[in-house]
This record gives sequence, structure tokens and C-alpha cells, in this order.
Amino acid sequence: ITMAKGDQCKKGLLELLKEGPVVGDGSMCMTLEKRGYCRAGPWTPEAVLLYPDAVKQLLREYMRAGADVLQTPCFYCSDGMFKKGSKSGEPISYTTDAINEAACRIAHEISKEGKDVLVCGGLSPVLSYFREKNMEKARAEFDSQLDVFIKYKVDFVLAEFFAYIEELEICIDVMKRSKMPIACTMRIGPLGDSNGVSVEECAVRMARTGADLIGINCLYDFDTCLKTLKRMRDALDKEGLKTHLICQPLGWRCPEVEHTLIGYLDLPETPLGSLEPRQVTRFEVHAFARAAYDLGVRYIGGCCGMEPHHIRAIAQELAPERKRNPPVEDMCPPLGYLQLSGLSNIKKKDNKQYWIEQKPGSGRPFSPALSSTEG
Amino acid sequence: ITMAKGDQCKKGLLELLKEGPVVGDGSMCMTLEKRGYCRAGPWTPEAVLLYPDAVKQLLREYMRAGADVLQTPCFYCSDGMFKKGSKSGEPISYTTDAINEAACRIAHEISKEGKDVLVCGGLSPVLSYFREKNMEKARAEFDSQLDVFIKYKVDFVLAEFFAYIEELEICIDVMKRSKMPIACTMRIGPLGDSNGVSVEECAVRMARTGADLIGINCLYDFDTCLKTLKRMRDALDKEGLKTHLICQPLGWRCPEVEHTLIGYLDLPETPLGSLEPRQVTRFEVHAFARAAYDLGVRYIGGCCGMEPHHIRAIAQELAPERKRNPPVEDMCPPLGYLQLSGLSNIKKKDNKQYWIEQKPGSGRPFSPALSSTEG
Amino acid sequence: ITMAKGDQCKKGLLELLKEGPVVGDGSMCMTLEKRGYCRAGPWTPEAVLLYPDAVKQLLREYMRAGADVLQTPCFYCSDGMFKKGSKSGEPISYTTDAINEAACRIAHEISKEGKDVLVCGGLSPVLSYFREKNMEKARAEFDSQLDVFIKYKVDFVLAEFFAYIEELEICIDVMKRSKMPIACTMRIGPLGDSNGVSVEECAVRMARTGADLIGINCLYDFDTCLKTLKRMRDALDKEGLKTHLICQPLGWRCPEVEHTLIGYLDLPETPLGSLEPRQVTRFEVHAFARAAYDLGVRYIGGCCGMEPHHIRAIAQELAPERKRNPPVEDMCPPLGYLQLSGLSNIKKKDNKQYWIEQKPGSGRPFSPALSSTEG
Amino acid sequence: ITMAKGDQCKKGLLELLKEGPVVGDGSMCMTLEKRGYCRAGPWTPEAVLLYPDAVKQLLREYMRAGADVLQTPCFYCSDGMFKKGSKSGEPISYTTDAINEAACRIAHEISKEGKDVLVCGGLSPVLSYFREKNMEKARAEFDSQLDVFIKYKVDFVLAEFFAYIEELEICIDVMKRSKMPIACTMRIGPLGDSNGVSVEECAVRMARTGADLIGINCLYDFDTCLKTLKRMRDALDKEGLKTHLICQPLGWRCPEVEHTLIGYLDLPETPLGSLEPRQVTRFEVHAFARAAYDLGVRYIGGCCGMEPHHIRAIAQELAPERKRNPPVEDMCPPLGYLQLSGLSNIKKKDNKQYWIEQKPGSGRPFSPALSSTEG
Repeated sequence: ITMAKGDQCKKGLLELLKEGPVVGDGSMCMTLEKRGYCRAGPWTPEAVLLYPDAVKQLLREYMRAGADVLQTPCFYCSDGMFKKGSKSGEPISYTTDAINEAACRIAHEISKEGKDVLVCGGLSPVLSYFREKNMEKARAEFDSQLDVFIKYKVDFVLAEFFAYIEELEICIDVMKRSKMPIACTMRIGPLGDSNGVSVEECAVRMARTGADLIGINCLYDFDTCLKTLKRMRDALDKEGLKTHLICQPLGWRCPEVEHTLIGYLDLPETPLGSLEPRQVTRFEVHAFARAAYDLGVRYIGGCCGMEPHHIRAIAQELAPERKRNPPVEDMCPPLGYLQLSGLSNIKKKDNKQYWIEQKPGSGRPFSPALSSTEG
Repeated sequence: ITMAKGDQCKKGLLELLKEGPVVGDGSMCMTLEKRGYCRAGPWTPEAVLLYPDAVKQLLREYMRAGADVLQTPCFYCSDGMFKKGSKSGEPISYTTDAINEAACRIAHEISKEGKDVLVCGGLSPVLSYFREKNMEKARAEFDSQLDVFIKYKVDFVLAEFFAYIEELEICIDVMKRSKMPIACTMRIGPLGDSNGVSVEECAVRMARTGADLIGINCLYDFDTCLKTLKRMRDALDKEGLKTHLICQPLGWRCPEVEHTLIGYLDLPETPLGSLEPRQVTRFEVHAFARAAYDLGVRYIGGCCGMEPHHIRAIAQELAPERKRNPPVEDMCPPLGYLQLSGLSNIKKKDNKQYWIEQKPGSGRPFSPALSSTEG
Repeated sequence: ITMAKGDQCKKGLLELLKEGPVVGDGSMCMTLEKRGYCRAGPWTPEAVLLYPDAVKQLLREYMRAGADVLQTPCFYCSDGMFKKGSKSGEPISYTTDAINEAACRIAHEISKEGKDVLVCGGLSPVLSYFREKNMEKARAEFDSQLDVFIKYKVDFVLAEFFAYIEELEICIDVMKRSKMPIACTMRIGPLGDSNGVSVEECAVRMARTGADLIGINCLYDFDTCLKTLKRMRDALDKEGLKTHLICQPLGWRCPEVEHTLIGYLDLPETPLGSLEPRQVTRFEVHAFARAAYDLGVRYIGGCCGMEPHHIRAIAQELAPERKRNPPVEDMCPPLGYLQLSGLSNIKKKDNKQYWIEQKPGSGRPFSPALSSTEG
Repeated sequence: ITMAKGDQCKKGLLELLKEGPVVGDGSMCMTLEKRGYCRAGPWTPEAVLLYPDAVKQLLREYMRAGADVLQTPCFYCSDGMFKKGSKSGEPISYTTDAINEAACRIAHEISKEGKDVLVCGGLSPVLSYFREKNMEKARAEFDSQLDVFIKYKVDFVLAEFFAYIEELEICIDVMKRSKMPIACTMRIGPLGDSNGVSVEECAVRMARTGADLIGINCLYDFDTCLKTLKRMRDALDKEGLKTHLICQPLGWRCPEVEHTLIGYLDLPETPLGSLEPRQVTRFEVHAFARAAYDLGVRYIGGCCGMEPHHIRAIAQELAPERKRNPPVEDMCPPLGYLQLSGLSNIKKKDNKQYWIEQKPGSGRPFSPALSSTEG
């Protein structure tokens, strides 16, 4: 039941995408927070230095669940990010480079426990753009981060969680220097980017700037993301662009924020932890993965709230198209075991249709289904 | 930030209970299943042999969150349990003793990473009673399991998840031989035990048979458990019994099964994983811990669905009474950080009252709040 | 399509009950309030003097819908009731006798438009008992009201909405003088009467004091009433009493107040008019009528919130047992017409099962299903 | 408390609109169906001939509630409409003219019980357009209906429930011959008319063709209607058109059908009567009336599901702007009486804010908030 050693000549991202749908990994910051290794609010990845074993364990779970890719766990790791969450204002004793390097080592180490698992270097928005709109400084920051990924020989790079196509274009442009495949995702919904650039234009500009894989991540739920991706696909089709699509959505249901600029961050339940009732079930993931695939999305993973069993559901749903199951299923076969003698109605539950059609209850009759985002 | 080494002369369970409320650990089987290390249905703990690092990591998380006790991860580890979940019928290559021993070693190892953390040997119902009502065989099984706990010098023993007071009395009687403190919990709700013995009688019989700590675990949610515990406390009071109370409830909301014999196992969403919308929030845990303490419960932990951040909420809520915080809070201070600049309405969210009073939405307007258990 | 004239030798209540289930009428005060003829709060029946045509129209609708009985519309018509709702404190220009007499005339007039429709004289609790516990004064008040019903030759008398069995016993005792059949209903739920007398004892005392028909009305919803009636029936059975059962429940869903003494009056939505989302559908009425009949209830009508189409649903559901349909169905055949060309999915809707199984939505995803009655 | 006699020289619609917001009447067909006087499905107004007193009573209730206008109760009264609802296929014994004339007489008779109450002749879509797109035949039908309204001297004409602007333009053109003020409403939502003509274009074409008052009625709920009206207003503004706006929305909540062509007709609960949980509360009406007024709507009434107490809520909400209360409020003062002694928490309920902010429960925790319109 131990996993095969990773080999030296594994396939690259573009080859994988040609063969069938690629499965991404899931939530890092918010899952680590629940486990005790990340701070709610800043969501920065100090844990790669402070608690590397806990981070490795989570990456391992995603890989065992079927993720083809492990992203370097260094989200929001750029200048200025590490101070804001600190109440005590204690001096920060680590550099962004040190964290990015540790993240690379961790991702490489775990990927080698598997077979053909890619490591993806992750870049995210920088404060020099957000606060100062300083393009040169932003470019320099991306440049510096990219150096680490080149040094550690990741398999491809992913720029994610961008709110502005303008900033993302700088980042893509920088990433080209790596000669690696380039993926990028924006955190946008139907309203488009935070400057009002439309979904369609964002899609086309991402592709034209040179990304091999474009799409969205975070902030919106399955249904909203699928609507946005359909518009992206139509826009690419219209322009004759063949760029692959990626989707790494939230693991929470939040239809009420579809038409806001910051998605689930607008919910009264964000960020501190009343999001449980919104968390997707694995069968909602099955349905999502199928719908995304049918829409033409070829890289399907998860963002905040998508945990290992959710990633496994993607890999199990798409097993026919991928011609492989998750690498380790001894403990979690497709749809699980159902022979528990103590359960009532077990017969009717022993089939996928039952679970897919189920409308799960919240157990909270005194709570509304949706939360008002006003006030 | 590393934890202090466990010392040799740590306090025992009874001393701890005298000082203030004790925090138990949380869900093992169902949390490991989501992480990929336990089979849904059988819920047996082979992982202690197959994937010990994953089990250790979860125990570590509970300890860091504030658990004073780590239970040996060997739930349902008794004769006959390991076959039923196996679809293929492959031969079982491990013995219950081997698993129980590994569970002891793991719990001891992690407990030593902390300070004053107790190890508790866990016993659960056996098939020889459930299927055959064979009291002698049941006694022999409990006896054999107890041997392991004596050999590995756990700090106390806990018999949990009992549906029949009759069976539990045998188990308590066996446990006395260990000379250790004895805790026991039944998985009962308002209807009493599965033979129809009332909640009140169960409480009194548990105490009279010799347990130092009695109460309930699993199957029912916070509100139902609190009602049952109130009846237990009143029954003990009436008899002049001073036995301590323990509560390790479900981490899911399921008021609709309050008046059933098997609680959440009756839900259409059980067992395979549509329980997410029912999972408790950490603030619901805060409220529960406070209510349980006010009711006189002095050992508060969690069963299925209670994850590390929930255990942390118990420890943080009861910090004043315990005169200590969770041992490691660098990443998860009480109620978290709330200074995220990107969030709307952040001012009004920066206080505990906001979160306690919140009625979290499920994000699922097409699902009912409760599920019918008929049909 | 005009209705047959009432005949002189119509069957009495006891004969009707022997033949099959009797259908009562529905909500008066609260339906008249919506139409503009009754004050929310006092709920007193001045309208019989001020707006007799509006009252007649509502009685006519109940009769056309299938009600076998028209109750004299004089609820809460006793000394002291008429002052409390008046903000301006203007002098009251009518006597309780004048109102009771007008109510009798109205009920008789409409009943004669139908065939075999009984008129029932209604008595309700008096302030001399509620405020002063003055038994003699209460007796005198009931006596005086009964005089009117005797003078106007109603077909039977009904004492309803009693919270105290003690007061009701006085009323039943008074009613015996009329030599008419006697019905009585208490407004109680699982907690029993407002002095803590159990449901079972109330049932037996009502029957033993001399009522021919006993049961409950108002304050609780279908499910709660059915539970209470089952306990009443079991109590009567145990004592070998053959008294008939009557149920005139609320027309609103309110499971959250089952365990309160004043039922829906405890809801945050009472009394002024946010009860619409709780109102029962006609198919919920079908299911209720069937369940009540199966339980042995033989007089089924409605209280607050039960409108003409709901009464019609009772009569249509029990048509086989009653061997008759509602007297006028040209405009409202059983389950209505379903051939509307403009509707989608009309095929699947054209059968009773579809409607009975439907879980109707509230259209309010931002509202909870249940309301907290705390605070 | 009797109402003043209608005078001869009452103000016309346009004068009323100049003075302040006009209140329309409410639901006819669907309210009469519940009362037993209209067939679900066909929704045709035979009752004006068969049961005129019941129809008069409902009109009287709207007038007492504050309606400034009584519409002739002849919805869907045109050739071919009367057959389709008949299961038995019995011959129809009345002509559309006979019904339209009876409707005029009824509306006039009741309007004279009030003061300054206008009678409005109502036209609705015809089958000759819907089935055959026969413009000439449609024109002839409208012409023939208009003759009746001219003969009976109604105060203005209203073409309502139009799905196609093309058909409505014919109708408006016909109505001009009457020299009366012309109002018209389409049953459209965000998708525009059933040929795909946009909301904006519909608004402008209605105004340009010659209507004095334009807007929407039926099919969508308050929130959806307000969004559509805002677009209409903006479109008129853009063209410099000063035409008044009218809104007569549904009395049910149904946000889930906002983006369908037939609105609530797409709900699984339509048409037969599981709509109760969706019915608006009077406080939801208060909020709607205020929002509509603030948006610039100057004629506010109701369509299906809007009952007398809802119309009263419009008139009471807009009393300051109208400088008058509903004409008869002895039984239903603004916001009702609240001094019921038996109620808990009555203090906190005795103010409008409490009711406006309330999120009313459905009492149905086993039902979803919204219904899927698929399948």
C-alpha cells in the first residue's frame, strides 16, 4: 500500500492536459487554520518553516486523494504580508525567500512519495500593486519570487487569486522567463475584475499574454464559477483561442454573493469560522466535477474549503476520463463502503444516484438558508 | 513554540477534575476517513498499523488545541469487527491486540510531546454481546483488551459508545481490576438505552457499578445531549451520588433524530458524507461548552464530527475556569485575528458576541433545514 | 347551482357522528380581520351587528365548502371582553346578549341556504374565571349565554378554547340544562391545561362531566394536535369511555411552540400578521384530515387560519367516508382543474400524489424555517 | 361607519395621479377560488353571473381597504377562454359580452358605496393573437370589449397581463377610441417580452403608443418587479417620457423564477394551492409599497395573491403621501391593536420597526426555502 517512488522523467503539465482532465490540490491556509497551523486573517504560510510536518501531511493527503499537482504552499508570501496579522507586532524573523524555498522543498519531497506528481510554483498578488499601483515594484517582486521557483525546478508556475487583469498581465509576462508552462487564475465572478474589466476580456487577455491554462479560483462557489467559466470559454472560442481552462473554486456554497466583487469575503460568516454549514459535500463535488468537465474545463482542483475528501471526489468522478483512480483507495474506495449493519435504509443508500440527488439538511431550522450581506 | 516535554509525575484524571473542567479530544474515525485513513462503514482503526504518522498528526492537533486527554485510537477494535467492511473479503492480517498495542504506543508518544497530557485506554461494545448476548464471552473480550491497557500503563480507562447498560456494567466491572480511574459513556438519548432502560436508571447504574465519570458520547447533537445530561445529573443528585459527568457529543446538528434510538445514524445523510452542512461552527461549540459547564459537566470533549478547531473552541471558552489556554496558540489565538483589511463590516465582527449570536446560513436555499427520516 | 332549502327534520349531531365524519367550519375572527371586519388583538365579534353581510358571506363559504356545522359567530363574546381592544376608550354601545342573538340569527339564516346544516351555539372562557377565579360568577355568565342559545334553538352547544379543565367543567355542567348535545374543546397541547392537569386527565374529565364530543381547538398545529388527540383517545380507551373526538386545529405550522402553554401566541409573528408563511396548504389539510380520521377523530374542522378552501379540502378528502362531496363544487372540483395550457410540467402535476408529497417552498431564503420564541 | 355615497363629479385617474400615489385593488380570480367562486386553471370570471354577491363582497373589501380603483372583474373574458377549463365539456350558456356587462354593473355598484372610487375597464390578451397571431381578429376582439366599457362609462381602461408588446400595441391603439385615460401592464420580468423584446423597449413602446400609465402586473414577486420597474423608469427617463408607472405584483415570494418567461407559473407549487408559504405578509407589503413609491411608481395595487389586508397595507403605508387613510379603519387601524393581555413580549412588538424587520418563519423545517423548477 506504499506509494511508488516518483520517477525522473514524469510527464509535464501540457502532456497531462492532452491526456485527460488534471486534478489539482485543495485548500491550504483555511484547512491548516482548522488544524492549528495558520492564522485566520493574514492567512500567511509561516507554517512551512514553523511546522513543516503538518504542512507535509496535508499535501500528502491531497496527493493520495488523487491530486496530480502539488502547489508550493506559499500563498500570499510577498513583501508586507506578514505584518498585518500580528497583534503583538513582534518582529518577523523570516524572509519571503526563506518561506518560498521551504515551500518548494516540501512540495518536492511529498511529490516524490507519489508517481508523476507535478510541483507547481504559486504566485499571488502583491501589495506594491494593490496599494501603490507601482508596476515596476510589482514586476520586481514577481521576478524575485520566480527566481526561487526556477532555482527549485518546479514543473510549472501558477499565478492565482488576481483581482486585476492589469496586475496579472505583469505577472504572466514575468513568468515567461521561466520557460515553464504558465497557468493563471483570477478571483473574479460575473462582475469581472475589480477595475470593471469584463470576464470575457479577462479571459482573452490572460490567453493572449501567454498563459497556457487560464481560469478562476476562490471567492465564488461551484455554480457561480461554472457560469463564469462558460463565459470565458465562449470568449476564447469567439477569438479562436485554444487555451486550456482551469477551475479551483471555493468549497462553500454562497449563491448570495454571486454579484459582489469580493464573493464570500462579504458573508457575515467570513472569515472566522461559521462557514461549516456552507461546506460542500463530496457528492456536490461529484456533480461539480462532472459539470466542469462537460463544460470543457481540463484542470479541476479546489481553493479555500476544499479538503482532501473533496479532491478525492473529483478524482473518483473523473476516473473514467482519467483512466486511473486515486493512487491510494484502500481506505476510501469510490463512494465508500455501505454495509454497516446498524444503519436503517441501507439498501436504498447503496448507489451513487441516491447521494447525488440528496438535498442535505443543515440541522438548523432556526437559521436562514442565506445570509444578508447588507449592514 | 515547541511544546514542553511531558513530565513523569503528571496529575491523574481525578486530580484534574477537581481543579476544573477537563477537555477531551475529538473525532478520530470520521476525521481520518476524510483525510484518507479510515473506511466509512466499518470505521475500524487499522490506520494505527498502516498509517501511524497520519494518526499521530491528528492526535497532535487535538493536544495542541487543548485536549488534556488523548484516547488510544482503537475504537471498535474487537473480534469480528474487521471483517464486515471488507468488500473483497481479503484476509485480515492483523490482530486486535496488535492494533490496541499500536494505539497505546501512538497515544503515549504524542502525549509526551505535551505537558500533563493523559492517555486514556478506550473500550467499546463487542459483537459477542450485541449478536449473542453472551455475557461470559463479552467479559473475556473486555478482559483481554484491558490487559493491553494495563501493560501499556494508560492513565485511565474509558468505556464508550455503549447502547446497553447491561453490557456496560460488565465492562465497568472488568475495568475495576485495573485500579485506574474509570470513565464511561453511553450513546443514548431521551429514549434511554436500547432495551428501554431510562436515562435516569442508566446514570445511576453506571455510577453504582463503580465508574468515576459517567455520561454520554456520540449519536446526538449538542442540544439533545444537554437535555440528556440534565436528566442524568438530576438522577444522580436525587440518589446523592457525586459522580462526575462527561459529555462527548456529535459535531453535527441533527435535532430531528432526538427521539430515535440510533440518533444521527438514522439520517438520510449518514454515513457517507453529506453531513457537512450539519457540522457545528466553533461558535456553536463555544456556546455548548459554556452550557455544559453550567450544567455541571466536568469532562467535555467531542465525538464524530468534532475536529481540532472545535476542541480548541472548548479549551478557549473554558480558559477562565481552567486557568490556562490551549498550549499552542501562536496560530490560533482566541477567536482569531480580525484585522483583515479586505473585509467589509470588519468592525462589527471584531467581538465574540457577534459570532455567538450569528445564525449561520447553509448557502443551500433548495435544501430543507431538516431531513425526513421516514421511508 | 342554488342550494337546497334546509328542511325541518334534519339529523342531529349524534346521528351525523354515527354516519361518518362530521366537517366543522373554520376561522372566523382572523379571517374577518384580513377582510376588514374584526380587530386584531381583541378578536371580538362586533361585526355581527356592524357588518352582518360580511359575516354571512364567510359562513356561506364554509357551508358551500362542506361544513356540516355553522358555529354562531360569537367567540369571546362575554362580559369585559369588548373594552380591552379599544384604544380610544369610546363607550361600547352593544350588549353581549345583542351580539349573541345576532350571531344566532346569522347562523340560522345561512344554514337554511344549505341542507342538513347544523347550527352550533359557541361558548368560550370568561374573564370572571380567568381574572377572579370566581366560579359562581362564571357559572352565571355561561348560564346567561346558554339562555340565548336555547331561545334561538341551536342544534347543539360547543364550549371551546378552554385553558382550564376546572372552568370547562362548570361550563359543561351549565350546558346540560339545554338538553342539547354537548361538545367541548380545550386549547391545550402536550403540557396539559394551564394548571398542569395532564392531557389524559382533561380528556377523561371532559367525558365524565357529560360532554358527547371532546377534543381540542386552536393554539397548536396539525402535528401537535394529532399527538395530543392520540393521548386523549388512549386515555378514553383506558377508561372504557366511548365519547367522540373533535379536532379544530390552527391553520398555521408552528412546531416550535409545541412545548409551550400558549402555543402560537408565543411566536414572534403573532398576532399581527406575519403568519402567512406558516399557513397550511390544502394538501397539508388533506393529509391532516386523513390522519385525524385514521386516529378516530369524528368531527374535524378548523380554528384560526383555516379558511374556506381548507375546510373544502377536509370535505373532499373524507368524501368516501362521508358518502358525499361538498354541496357546491362547480367552481372547485376535487383537486381542481389542471388543464391550463400555459403551465410547464402540467402532466406530472395532474394527480393527487404529486401534491400530497410536495414540500412547498417559502420563497424566503433569508428567513429561517422556525422562529426563536426566546427573548 | 357607513361609507359616504359616491358623488357625481369625482376626480379622474390623471387628476388622482397628480395628487399622489393611487392604490389599486387586488387579486380577484385566485382569491375567489379559495372562497369557492372561481375555477383553478381557467381562472375565468363566470362568477359575476353565477355568484354576483360573492364578487361584490370582495370588491367591497378592496374598496374599504383603501383601493381608489375597482377593476371590472372580467379577467380573461374573451372568446375561447371559457371552454378550456371544463372537464365535462358542458355547453357554455353565457357570452363574453354578458359577463363583461355584469362585471361593469358590479364594479359601478360597489364603487358607489365609496367616495371618489374609480371604475376601470379591464382588457386582457386574446387567443386570436396567442394561437393564430391574427392581428385583425385580435383588434376586433379588443374593439368589441371596449364597446362594453364605453357603454358602461367606466372611468378609464386598463390592458393587463400582456406577454407581447406587439399585441399590447394593438390593444392600446384600440383603447384610444374611448377617449378615456389608458393604463397598461405587461406580465414581464428581466427577460423582457415573450418575443425577446427588452424591458426597456417595451416601456418606451407602451408610452409612445399612447398609454398614460405603464408598468407590469402578475407573474413576479416584489423584488423582481421593482428591478424591472427601475429599468422601465430609466428607459422612459432616457427618452424624456413622463408617463406614469404602475405596479400590480404577485402576492407571493418567488425569487427562483426571476429569470424565466412565465414567472411563478413555473413553480412546482402552481397553480393548485401550495402557494400559501410564499404569500407575502402585510409588513412585506409595507416595505414594498415604500420602495415602489421611492422608485417613482404612482399606481400601486396587487395581482394574484394580494388580498384585502395587503391592499390595506399599501394604503396605510402611503397614507402620509396620500393625505388620507383607508376609508374604513374601525376594525383595522394602522398596524392593528397590540394590547392583547395573553401575549408574551407584547411590549417589544408594539412598534412598526419590529414587524418590518421580522424574518417570518415558515414553520416547515422539512421544506426547502426555494423550489427547483427543473424536471
